[in-house]
Amino acid sequence: MKKKDLLKNVIKHIDITSFDSTPIIDSMREMSFTSRDTATATDILIRMLKDKGCSVILTLAGSTSAGGCMQLYHDMVKYNMVDAIVATGASIVDMDFFEALGYKHYKGDPYMNDKVLRDNYIDRIYDTYIDEEQLQACDATIKQIADKLEKRPYSSREFIWEMGKYLKSGKAKKKNSLIQICYEKNVPIFCPAFTDSSAGFGLVMHQVENPKKHMSIDSVKDFLELTQVKIKAGETGLFMIGGGVPKNFTQDTVICAEVMGIDVPMHKYAVQITVADVRDGACSSSTLKEASSWGKVDTVYEQMVYAEATSVLPLIVSYAYHSGIWKNRKSRNFSKIF
Amino acid sequence: MKKKDLLKNVIKHIDITSFDSTPIIDSMREMSFTSRDTATATDILIRMLKDKGCSVILTLAGSTSAGGCMQLYHDMVKYNMVDAIVATGASIVDMDFFEALGYKHYKGDPYMNDKVLRDNYIDRIYDTYIDEEQLQACDATIKQIADKLEKRPYSSREFIWEMGKYLKSGKAKKKNSLIQICYEKNVPIFCPAFTDSSAGFGLVMHQVENPKKHMSIDSVKDFLELTQVKIKAGETGLFMIGGGVPKNFTQDTVICAEVMGIDVPMHKYAVQITVADVRDGACSSSTLKEASSWGKVDTVYEQMVYAEATSVLPLIVSYAYHSGIWKNRKSRNFSKIF
Amino acid sequence: MKKKDLLKNVIKHIDITSFDSTPIIDSMREMSFTSRDTATATDILIRMLKDKGCSVILTLAGSTSAGGCMQLYHDMVKYNMVDAIVATGASIVDMDFFEALGYKHYKGDPYMNDKVLRDNYIDRIYDTYIDEEQLQACDATIKQIADKLEKRPYSSREFIWEMGKYLKSGKAKKKNSLIQICYEKNVPIFCPAFTDSSAGFGLVMHQVENPKKHMSIDSVKDFLELTQVKIKAGETGLFMIGGGVPKNFTQDTVICAEVMGIDVPMHKYAVQITVADVRDGACSSSTLKEASSWGKVDTVYEQMVYAEATSVLPLIVSYAYHSGIWKNRKSRNFSKIF
Amino acid sequence: MKKKDLLKNVIKHIDITSFDSTPIIDSMREMSFTSRDTATATDILIRMLKDKGCSVILTLAGSTSAGGCMQLYHDMVKYNMVDAIVATGASIVDMDFFEALGYKHYKGDPYMNDKVLRDNYIDRIYDTYIDEEQLQACDATIKQIADKLEKRPYSSREFIWEMGKYLKSGKAKKKNSLIQICYEKNVPIFCPAFTDSSAGFGLVMHQVENPKKHMSIDSVKDFLELTQVKIKAGETGLFMIGGGVPKNFTQDTVICAEVMGIDVPMHKYAVQITVADVRDGACSSSTLKEASSWGKVDTVYEQMVYAEATSVLPLIVSYAYHSGIWKNRKSRNFSKIF
Repeated sequence: MKKKDLLKNVIKHIDITSFDSTPIIDSMREMSFTSRDTATATDILIRMLKDKGCSVILTLAGSTSAGGCMQLYHDMVKYNMVDAIVATGASIVDMDFFEALGYKHYKGDPYMNDKVLRDNYIDRIYDTYIDEEQLQACDATIKQIADKLEKRPYSSREFIWEMGKYLKSGKAKKKNSLIQICYEKNVPIFCPAFTDSSAGFGLVMHQVENPKKHMSIDSVKDFLELTQVKIKAGETGLFMIGGGVPKNFTQDTVICAEVMGIDVPMHKYAVQITVADVRDGACSSSTLKEASSWGKVDTVYEQMVYAEATSVLPLIVSYAYHSGIWKNRKSRNFSKIF
Repeated sequence: MKKKDLLKNVIKHIDITSFDSTPIIDSMREMSFTSRDTATATDILIRMLKDKGCSVILTLAGSTSAGGCMQLYHDMVKYNMVDAIVATGASIVDMDFFEALGYKHYKGDPYMNDKVLRDNYIDRIYDTYIDEEQLQACDATIKQIADKLEKRPYSSREFIWEMGKYLKSGKAKKKNSLIQICYEKNVPIFCPAFTDSSAGFGLVMHQVENPKKHMSIDSVKDFLELTQVKIKAGETGLFMIGGGVPKNFTQDTVICAEVMGIDVPMHKYAVQITVADVRDGACSSSTLKEASSWGKVDTVYEQMVYAEATSVLPLIVSYAYHSGIWKNRKSRNFSKIF
Repeated sequence: MKKKDLLKNVIKHIDITSFDSTPIIDSMREMSFTSRDTATATDILIRMLKDKGCSVILTLAGSTSAGGCMQLYHDMVKYNMVDAIVATGASIVDMDFFEALGYKHYKGDPYMNDKVLRDNYIDRIYDTYIDEEQLQACDATIKQIADKLEKRPYSSREFIWEMGKYLKSGKAKKKNSLIQICYEKNVPIFCPAFTDSSAGFGLVMHQVENPKKHMSIDSVKDFLELTQVKIKAGETGLFMIGGGVPKNFTQDTVICAEVMGIDVPMHKYAVQITVADVRDGACSSSTLKEASSWGKVDTVYEQMVYAEATSVLPLIVSYAYHSGIWKNRKSRNFSKIF
Repeated sequence: MKKKDLLKNVIKHIDITSFDSTPIIDSMREMSFTSRDTATATDILIRMLKDKGCSVILTLAGSTSAGGCMQLYHDMVKYNMVDAIVATGASIVDMDFFEALGYKHYKGDPYMNDKVLRDNYIDRIYDTYIDEEQLQACDATIKQIADKLEKRPYSSREFIWEMGKYLKSGKAKKKNSLIQICYEKNVPIFCPAFTDSSAGFGLVMHQVENPKKHMSIDSVKDFLELTQVKIKAGETGLFMIGGGVPKNFTQDTVICAEVMGIDVPMHKYAVQITVADVRDGACSSSTLKEASSWGKVDTVYEQMVYAEATSVLPLIVSYAYHSGIWKNRKSRNFSKIF
C-alpha cells in the first residue's frame, strides 16, 4: 500500500455554528446516565459564561484536536467563551500549530498493520494518521523560532505567544488556528509539559546547536504565571477535556496562590469529560469531589461526563454558542498581564 | 426527606423526530474516535434499512428504556426500522410495561444515601429512581395475565404477546409502549432470561398459587422460535444496545439453524453500542470480529461504538428517521409465523 | 496455519492449594486501590465462612472457567466454601461440562485473524480457543440426556443435576468437574438463562425431534427454587464473579421471598469482582450500595473489586483455603430440599 | 470526626522479597485474560534483565507509590533491575520525598464526605489520605534546597539529584526512599512535568522571593539528557506503570536521537500496566503496537496488562526478585554521564 493511498481522507473539523444542538441538549436534560450528565455539564458551562465575575479556563488532554475538534476550540475563543487555556504540548504543537502550517490529519484504520505504517513514515493515533515527515517540518519550525529568541528561560506561554506572532506575521497557511486566535485575542496558552511534544525535538536541536547559551523552557515560570492568572481572575470555571497534567496543574493554582499568601476562591465551576476510571487512583480519573478535599474545586457546580469527548463536546459547545450568552461577556485579555 | 420530594422530576423520553441530527452525524463522519464510530454505526444502520433482503433485529440490555430512550425504541418499530426484538426482561417488563400501566421513572441523584431510599421504598438505577410500590403493582398485573392463560409452557414471546393484547384491550394508560406497538405491528419480542425481571415475581406467585398445574416459561422454545425468525428472515442486521444475554442469544441463532440442518447466512450487518471492555473475556464486551470466529457475524459491515448509549443513540436514530429510508421498507410481520 | 498448530497449548487450571497467598493478601490489606479492595473482599469471604448461620452463594458470569479458574470453583465446593451456585449457561455447559467430557480449552492470540479461525472451526474468546467440533459433540450429549427424561418442564437446576448424574455414572472423562462435585455434595447449580449456552442447541434439537411432547426448561421454576434456597438458608453471603443475569437473579431472591409473604434477611455479605463501569446504568456494573436501595444487599460488609477476575481471584481463594476456616463449616446439602 | 481519628491507619509498603510469587505466575502463564497477560509481562521483564545489552527504564504515573508500592520501586533499584526512571512529579516529590522526610500516607475511605476532609486539611486520593500540613512542610523543604543552588536552569534530574544529596546528608528520616537509593546507585530520575507536583509550590516561592535571579527547571534539558541516556544505553526495555507524560516522553527519546542524527534502536521490550481504555485516542491508553507505527517501540516483546497496578505489580516484581536474574546484571550508573 502506498503512502498517498493511506493518506487520502482528511479529517475535517466540526463547525458547531453550522447546526444547533439546543433541542437535543434540552431533551437530554430530562433523561438519565451520560445524556443527563451531558446536559448538566452544558448547563454549568452556561452558568460560567453568565457569571460576570467568572473567568473560564479550558484544559485539554488527549487527541481531540487531531480528531476533529480543532475548529471547536478556536470558536470557543473567537466567541469569547474561554479566557485561558492549559493544554498538553501535543494538542498545541503537534496538532494545532501543525495544521496552521498547512499540514493535515487523516482518517485511518485502528486495525491497520503498524509495520506498513512504519514503513511509510505514517504515525497512528487510534484511527487517525499523521505524516511523520510533515511532523518533522513542524519540529524544524519550532527550532527556527527558538533560534531567533533571546537566550533565557521562557514560560511555555511566552514561547507559544511567539508561535502566534510567527503565524500572524504571514507564515500561517491556515488562518483559524487556536494559537493565532489566542494571540490575537490575548488568551494565554500554557503547556506545563511543553517539551513532551513535537516542540521538544525542535528545542533539543536548538540547545544542541547552542550548547553554551540557549533559550530554555522554565516550567516553574508557567506555574507562577498561571497562578497570576488565577489571582487576577478571582472566580473561575474549569472546562476540562480529558485529565492529565493540564487538569492537575490548573486545579493546583488555588493552592499555589495560598502558598504565595494570596487568598483566592476555589474553582467555582468544573466540568470534565473523560472515560478514565475513578478506581485507579490516578489524577486523570480523580473525581471533582475528591479535588474538593484538596481545596481546589468547589462542589456546588461540578459535573463529570463519562464519554469519549468527540461524541458529546460538539453538542455542549453548539448549545453554548446558540445560547448567545457569550455576546455579553467581556474579554479578560489575560495575556496583557505579562 | 419525603417520598414525594424524591419522586418529583419525571424522566421524559427523547423524541427523535423532533430534531434532526443529520448535520451532526455528517460532521462526525469526518472526525475521529467515538464520533466517527457513531457515524459509521449510523451508516451501517442505513445500509440495513436500505437492503431489501435484510431484516433488522434490535437487542436491548441495560437501562436505556428507563433512562429516556423508551419512545425511541417505540419509534423504531413504528417507523418500520425493526423486525424483531431480543431484550432483557427488565427492559420489557420493569420499564416498558411498567410505564404502559401509567407509572413513571424519576430523575435521581447517584450520590443519594441508599438507606434513605430504602426507607422510602425507592429503587435506584444509578441516577434514576423507581417507586417500588408501583413495581409491585406491575408484578401483580403479570400474575393476573398468567392466571388467565392455558396451563402450559410458553415462550417469552408468547407471553409478551399476551401482555400486548392486555394493553391493547384498553388497559394501557400510556398508548405508545414498545410492547403495544410490537403487538400491533407483528414484531415479536423475545426475553431469553424473562424471569430475571419484575415478571419473575408475578410468575412465581402464579406457580405458588397453582402448584400442580400452571403455565411456565420455556426458554428452549424462545431459542427455537428466534431461530425460526432467523431462518425466515434470511439476511439480517443486528442493532445492539449493550451486550448481555440478548446479544449472545441473537448471535447464536446462526449456529442453531446450522445445528437444525438449515443453512442460514451469518448476520450481515452488526452495530453494538457499549462501554464494556474487550479485555475481560465476557460476552458483553466481545468484539464483533471475535464473533466472526464463531461464524455468527460477518465482518464487512460491523461497528462497535464505545459510549454509554443514551448519549449517541438519539443521534443515530434521528438520522435514520430523517433519512426517510424506512418509508420503502416492507413489514416482515414475523409474529405471524407462530 | 493448520488446526492442530492453533490448538496446541492447553489452558491449565490454577490449583489454589498448591501455593499460599496469605502473605500477599496480608500485605495488600495495608495498601490502597485494588490491592486493598482485594484484601477486604478476602476478609469478607472469611467472615461469610466463619459465620455459622451464613450460607454462601457463588455467582458466575464471564469466561473465567474457560480461562483457568475451573479447578478453583471445584475446590471451593470441595472444601465446603460454597452452598449454591448461580451461573451463566456458558460457564456450566460450554466450559465445565465440556471439559468433563474430555475436551480442552487452548491458549490463543487475541490479535489472530478471525477468518483463519473460522476456516478451521475454531471459536475465540479473547485469547482463548475452542474447537467448535468438540462443542457440537457437547451439544449432542445434552440432547441425549434430554431425550431420556420425562417430558415435562424442568428447572435448570434439575437438568444440571441430571448432567451430574450422567457424569457420575462413568461418562466423565475428567473427574473433577464443578457439575460432578456439586452433584456429589448436594450443592445446587442454577442457570437462569440456561438456553443461552451450548445446552440451547441440544435442547432445541430435542424439541424439534419431539414436537408434540418434550421436556422444557422453566425459568420460573428456577426463580422459585432459588428463592426456596434463600428461605431455607436465612442469612446469606454472595461471592460474585462478574455481573449479568446471575448477579441480578440471586439478589432478587430477597424480594421474591417477600412477594411470597416470607420475610428473609437481605444478603448479609457481598463481594463482586468486575471491570464493568458503574456509570452505564446496567446491572453488571451497579454497585452493591445501589442494590441496597432495592432491599437486596446489606451494606455493612460489601466490597467491589475492580479487576479482571483471573488476576485476583486465585489470591482470594488461596487465602481462604489456607485459613482452614472451611474445616468447621457444615454442608447445607441444599439439593436435598427438592 | 477529628483529624487524628481520620489519620490513624498508616499505608504500609509491600515487601516483594518477603513472599515468593513464582508458583502463582507459573500458574497464570497457563491461564487466560489478565492472568496470562500478567505472566507474559513478567516473562518480558525477565528477558529485559537477562539481556546483557539491555538497559531498563521504569516509568511511573498514578499514585501507586502512595498506595503501597514505594518499597517495591526502591527494591527494583536496589536489586539492580532498573537503570533510569521517568516519573510524574507527584510520585517523586509528593510521595517518595514526602515519606523520606518522615511523613506518612494513611488508609482512607473512598466514600468519605470531602467537606469533612477539607475542614481537617486532609487530602484524598481515592481511598488514601494525606495530611496537607505535612505536604506544605515538604514544599518548604524543596524551597530550601532550591534557595541554596546556583541560579541557573536545571533539568529535573539535576534537581532530584540534589534532593538525594540532601537526604543522604542526614536529613532523611526514612532511609529507603527511591530518591536516596537512586542517588547512591547513580540511577537518574527524570520528571518531565516536575512543576506539576508539590515541588511546584516550593519552586514558585523560590522564584517569587528571588524575582531577578533564580534557578529554573528546564524541561528541554530533561529531554536532551534522557535522550543521552537512551543513546548511551543502546538497547532498552520499558517497564511502565500507568501512562501519561512519563510514557510518552520516554518513548519519544528514540525519535529525539534520530532528530539529533544518531541512530538508536527502538525500545526492544515494553510492558505497560494500565486500566486506560484504548478507544479514547489518548496517549495513556495507546497500545504498544500503535507506538510502533511511530517507530518508538518494537513489537516482538510487548505486553499491556489491563489492571490497576497495585494488584498485579507485586506478583510480577516478586517473581523477578526471586528469579535471581538481577544478580548478574551490571550497574549502568547513568547518572555519571552528566
